[in-house]
Amino acid sequence: MGIEHFMDKAVKLAVDNVKKGGGPFGAVIVKDGEVVASGTNRVTAENDPTAHAEVKAIREACSKLRTFDLSGCTIYTSCEPCPMCFSAIYWAHLDAVYYAADHHDAAKAGFDDAFIYDEIKKQPGERKINFKKLDFEQHFQPFADWISNENKTKY
Amino acid sequence: MGIEHFMDKAVKLAVDNVKKGGGPFGAVIVKDGEVVASGTNRVTAENDPTAHAEVKAIREACSKLRTFDLSGCTIYTSCEPCPMCFSAIYWAHLDAVYYAADHHDAAKAGFDDAFIYDEIKKQPGERKINFKKLDFEQHFQPFADWISNENKTKY
Repeated sequence: MGIEHFMDKAVKLAVDNVKKGGGPFGAVIVKDGEVVASGTNRVTAENDPTAHAEVKAIREACSKLRTFDLSGCTIYTSCEPCPMCFSAIYWAHLDAVYYAADHHDAAKAGFDDAFIYDEIKKQPGERKINFKKLDFEQHFQPFADWISNENKTKY
Repeated sequence: MGIEHFMDKAVKLAVDNVKKGGGPFGAVIVKDGEVVASGTNRVTAENDPTAHAEVKAIREACSKLRTFDLSGCTIYTSCEPCPMCFSAIYWAHLDAVYYAADHHDAAKAGFDDAFIYDEIKKQPGERKINFKKLDFEQHFQPFADWISNENKTKY
């Protein structure tokens, strides 16, 4: 089972998801040559703006493998990840990412995540959504408690 | 009920979550002066690397309000959002973001999401995780089907 085989699965999931009323995105996660999880875009179907194909696949893989660390796994996704999925891939410690369509293709279909990539680079006050840091006295308390907690599970 | 009141709730959730073995992060989502959802970091507790406080709060708010669009809502988070949560906030169309600690504070406690912000800016081949676009013939099929589907739910 090679790279083309797994990408074919991801793209077929995306095609099938459109038929079911979902978004045109699919992904599979592979470990040791086997598909361990898959995901499709279920944003509108599940009322969850975070339910992108990659995030769904990551959550399913972690649930099945009972870990929050997907080192040793590769994700095949029908489209270049948006910045949310990009970051989820880093937090999940996946080994590699293969994608078929890129963000230019996605933009042609009305999915403009390039906009979010641009927003990330801006300063908080210059963004379309207002990001404001409050001067809040207890702001460091959660971190102080975390640092002094000897029983924490690091990640 | 003002800004300080809601931030106090978010920070207290973060402090309380550390006591429960979770990560030092909390968030609340407010609509029309009322808290409609809250979230804490449950990455290790739920084996879900996407279970950050903001993502959890967004999922809960969307579930309760039965929408994937949180226009009209504001999020108060104990810490400046990581790029995953940042993007989730854009996809959810929240009106504004208030945060207490910033990413410098988070880094002092070992949470280095500045690293992911740096990775996003790099070209695919230069990243720590290998991102590779495949030359896959059917790459545009999901988008073509999406474009021609007249019954789709846009978002």
